[in-house]
Amino acid sequence: MGDIGELAGRLREFAAVREWEHYHTPKNLVMALAGEVGELVAEFQWLTAEESARVMDDPAAAARVRAELGDVFGYLVRLADVLGVDPVEAALDKHRENERRYDPAVYRGTYRKAPPLA
Amino acid sequence: MGDIGELAGRLREFAAVREWEHYHTPKNLVMALAGEVGELVAEFQWLTAEESARVMDDPAAAARVRAELGDVFGYLVRLADVLGVDPVEAALDKHRENERRYDPAVYRGTYRKAPPLA
Amino acid sequence: MGDIGELAGRLREFAAVREWEHYHTPKNLVMALAGEVGELVAEFQWLTAEESARVMDDPAAAARVRAELGDVFGYLVRLADVLGVDPVEAALDKHRENERRYDPAVYRGTYRKAPPLA
Amino acid sequence: MGDIGELAGRLREFAAVREWEHYHTPKNLVMALAGEVGELVAEFQWLTAEESARVMDDPAAAARVRAELGDVFGYLVRLADVLGVDPVEAALDKHRENERRYDPAVYRGTYRKAPPLA
Repeated sequence: MGDIGELAGRLREFAAVREWEHYHTPKNLVMALAGEVGELVAEFQWLTAEESARVMDDPAAAARVRAELGDVFGYLVRLADVLGVDPVEAALDKHRENERRYDPAVYRGTYRKAPPLA
Repeated sequence: MGDIGELAGRLREFAAVREWEHYHTPKNLVMALAGEVGELVAEFQWLTAEESARVMDDPAAAARVRAELGDVFGYLVRLADVLGVDPVEAALDKHRENERRYDPAVYRGTYRKAPPLA
Repeated sequence: MGDIGELAGRLREFAAVREWEHYHTPKNLVMALAGEVGELVAEFQWLTAEESARVMDDPAAAARVRAELGDVFGYLVRLADVLGVDPVEAALDKHRENERRYDPAVYRGTYRKAPPLA
Repeated sequence: MGDIGELAGRLREFAAVREWEHYHTPKNLVMALAGEVGELVAEFQWLTAEESARVMDDPAAAARVRAELGDVFGYLVRLADVLGVDPVEAALDKHRENERRYDPAVYRGTYRKAPPLA
């Protein structure tokens, strides 16, 4: 996979060269992220579960989905960079918490919300 | 930064061990992503621009923001994995497109939406 | 159905009595709306289409869905009030536009995105 | 203000005439709602708090915001209709709960999250 640190650096430079840093407050970036997620959701809203699983088989839909996912990922990495958060480490921490919350012996096959960890 | 391929692999295994793959259609994962983005937005909704820029100075707020960002990033990487998309490459492609759309000589200091590339 | 003007008035007074108007900029209210929509989405993310159609048959799920829908509706009406927009008239205008865009003879049974009106 | 029951009826008929009811599961409608909210958020993402408060002074921006708000409101009313929920009553119930949660003597001037009601 591509390198996330390089992506963060390029997005930082993109904003600096255009003198757009004043737009890139965490508040504004989280809104931009929400807006792009809305566009990604819209690609899937009328699809059945089965159609959504085959969405990448159609070249036109696949290109749109990949482009929207790229927009979402870009804003999320930019937000993480501005906040000084390593998004992979943050996700791994939540993953480790979920491994403790969701014992496979209890939750196998059926999801339901687990109580928070004590 | 942490390794995104390793994160994707762990999330894949997490779902497999719990036999939750039937939940992880692209349609469902994009909804889970939207839900987590909503929680991240909620952390910033009443903050001024200035307060949002200092949000990581408060340890309690910083922990909540980092945890929500981790949830968003995890679902986005899981979605990309299920779709077979490299999110970093998808974001870099959009970044290169934006570099061509937004000429610094024209857009310096002030954002406005550029017309799509021909 | 309940009266939307009365709801808008009560929400206006709620903010005034608490001196919270400075929080209720359109920017902040649209974020609050997005956050609440995320909570509503989360109620449906792991449900199949069929399960989602029966969600109100389960009293606990029905109460959660109704409460989240109420939160979303409240923030949307508050936002419309602050902007000076009549949300019903705005929706009816879009509805009339959609009636012209989507000729039943062409679109019956299958949705696809129509070109914008000339 | 316009009549919400009439709007719900028109949207119901719009779907019936086009035989689109099979698309209008609660799951799909909540996704459509999230997608439209993303478009509304995007109108505000780069605005300062002050600019957002004056957004309706610019006719072009005002028309876009009103149209997006209309889209959001339409999907929310359609979702409520499909679920059999009166959205005004649901919002009023949450409002009454918030009046009990947020004592003006305690919360005047400064918002912080109140504990849930016992």
